[in-house]
Amino acid sequence: MSEYIEHDKNGASVGIVQKRFFTFAHPPERLRLESGAQLGPVTLAYETCGRLSPERDNAVLVLHALSGDSHVAGVYTAEDEKPGWWDFMVGPGKGIDTERCFVICSNVIGGCAGSTGPSSIRPETGRPYGLDFPVVTIGDMVAAQKALIDHLGIRRLLCVVGGSIGGMQVLEWTVRYPERVASAVALATTMRHSALAIAFNEVARQAIMADPHWNRGDYYDGPKPATGLAVARMIGHITYLSDEAMRLKFGRRLQDKSDFSFNFDADFQVESYLRYQGRKFVDRFDANSFLYITKAADYYDLILQHGAGSAVRAFAKARARFLVISFTSDWLYPTYQSREIVKALKKNGRDVSFCEIEADWGHDAFLLPNPRLSALIHGFLERVLREVRTSPDAL
Amino acid sequence: MSEYIEHDKNGASVGIVQKRFFTFAHPPERLRLESGAQLGPVTLAYETCGRLSPERDNAVLVLHALSGDSHVAGVYTAEDEKPGWWDFMVGPGKGIDTERCFVICSNVIGGCAGSTGPSSIRPETGRPYGLDFPVVTIGDMVAAQKALIDHLGIRRLLCVVGGSIGGMQVLEWTVRYPERVASAVALATTMRHSALAIAFNEVARQAIMADPHWNRGDYYDGPKPATGLAVARMIGHITYLSDEAMRLKFGRRLQDKSDFSFNFDADFQVESYLRYQGRKFVDRFDANSFLYITKAADYYDLILQHGAGSAVRAFAKARARFLVISFTSDWLYPTYQSREIVKALKKNGRDVSFCEIEADWGHDAFLLPNPRLSALIHGFLERVLREVRTSPDAL
Repeated sequence: MSEYIEHDKNGASVGIVQKRFFTFAHPPERLRLESGAQLGPVTLAYETCGRLSPERDNAVLVLHALSGDSHVAGVYTAEDEKPGWWDFMVGPGKGIDTERCFVICSNVIGGCAGSTGPSSIRPETGRPYGLDFPVVTIGDMVAAQKALIDHLGIRRLLCVVGGSIGGMQVLEWTVRYPERVASAVALATTMRHSALAIAFNEVARQAIMADPHWNRGDYYDGPKPATGLAVARMIGHITYLSDEAMRLKFGRRLQDKSDFSFNFDADFQVESYLRYQGRKFVDRFDANSFLYITKAADYYDLILQHGAGSAVRAFAKARARFLVISFTSDWLYPTYQSREIVKALKKNGRDVSFCEIEADWGHDAFLLPNPRLSALIHGFLERVLREVRTSPDAL
Repeated sequence: MSEYIEHDKNGASVGIVQKRFFTFAHPPERLRLESGAQLGPVTLAYETCGRLSPERDNAVLVLHALSGDSHVAGVYTAEDEKPGWWDFMVGPGKGIDTERCFVICSNVIGGCAGSTGPSSIRPETGRPYGLDFPVVTIGDMVAAQKALIDHLGIRRLLCVVGGSIGGMQVLEWTVRYPERVASAVALATTMRHSALAIAFNEVARQAIMADPHWNRGDYYDGPKPATGLAVARMIGHITYLSDEAMRLKFGRRLQDKSDFSFNFDADFQVESYLRYQGRKFVDRFDANSFLYITKAADYYDLILQHGAGSAVRAFAKARARFLVISFTSDWLYPTYQSREIVKALKKNGRDVSFCEIEADWGHDAFLLPNPRLSALIHGFLERVLREVRTSPDAL
């Protein structure tokens, strides 16, 4: 969820990518949401890298986390230095090898990076939706992605891959459209938020809603709720790191000072870092989208929705091969929550590999270059590709 | 730090207590602060329970945490149902036995419960200090308490006791005035804040400062920065609990509902709880005091200040007997930080007992009735009292 990504400068890049848009659910054929509300037309921003094989059997759908978008790898122009958020993972010879796979990354509905969300223009009024945008769920996000995959003519995805909220979407794909998914990689994720995770999201939402510029979500014509969103982002950032990550990265080091200021300036580096992350986020993210996506994450409950309270039952329909990965220092979605996924899958006789990766960087670890992580995903995808090609009809 | 205290209804109470005030450092004899600034006159609000022995050898100074005050036990009037914040610990026959000990609890400077702080009237202007109040440190708080102890004619305290930020003050007492402290009980505390603890405090401060009503600290004539302070309090509350505490207390239970609202109301009980705690806090706490006290906690660094980087050296002057207690689920000041204190004390040959108490309630555990905690403190104080009376001059 962090932008604090060290680029894998040595790895080959997918080069220039193009942002694409797919619009569906044109009225009156609107997308029926889990809340009962309807939404349409719906646009998804997406990007692709690599080539779809003639057999259309090598498509990997990458699903992003809260603040991610469809720009997963490569750059927009030859001059643009900012690569996609998972550039170290997606590219020629990388973990998700674009010489072997056709990678699709779609922005979520509710977001603010080209897909329909609260900042989009509402056709009925000609003005941004604001809080009139319906609350969408992880299931709704996945339903929209399914429309995109249909549109691209892909019968079965080689793999769905994602971390954090992207990982929730991965899990949802495997039980909602089991016949459409040959394999799944769920990173640093959970079947449902703990009270702690909900608590952090709620406080972040309250910080946004406390900003008078938020104006009950109706701020697109005036000043943005920038200070509220910045505080929300700071709260998020703490949860993406860990005690150890912060100790290593900042400790008690002072910022450009030999002594305390004895005022309320940022004395410590960790304070400056958080303030900077907060400020930077405001330029690229919509406060309402923050509300909607965190709410979707809090609502998500695979166990209740698909298993009536039983994690084992929840995965009864899943057919995919699974790779589940957690990180030792992730205290937002701790390893025990990944183990619960693995246990439920195993009880269903599913083919599941699990790995807890030793990493100091907390929840953010899946966004940081890690040869072990890349190798795990690479090996898993190669195996699945081989199996799919050996017996294309056996899931 | 939580008000969520279940009262020990069976325990005998100290009965009616009276809030007292002690004012010192009248100009020009002002209190010289660690920043170099001066402050005066300085008032401390304090309360006492029990009787000071003729030998004046049974005084226990209790030091409160961030949101505490001098009202440690008993009630203000016969009709008042709200007992002090540590009523389960302080009273006849309790952990700190008021039939044996004379208990003093003093509000900190920088606070807002009767002691001099940013909401106090500045003599030079006749208006509240606001941000003109000097940044005070844990050392300054302790220096003010020392003036109170002098005023009360107590040569040596039987014990200084406190948790969290109160625990920092305990540690500071033992190295700043070693000859004045026979023993010390440091609960759920640390020699210095980790980057994680600083990060949480900083985000909470940013939430307050983001509230336009904060007005750079000058709000005493108008509306208070209530929404900002509420968000700050919510952030705090998350850190006082733990993943496990929240799971047990709330889980994913919904608030007065059978299904999701699909809007931004509080759906989950944990959301309602946090909103309630935020709202409630605003009535009794000053936003500027929140800034000052958290800053004092972040600045505190026993190792740097008293040991030039060495924890062992920091305790070189300490002479007290120590009881150090941590709680398994406290992730704000985790057990390893208490172990560091114990290790440094042992290397100095100090008499130190350490106990990690199994408790689900996170950092807040020291504020919740716990027979084991009460018994530990009771036993420790009895031993120290016996030793002090056997050989009054041997520390």
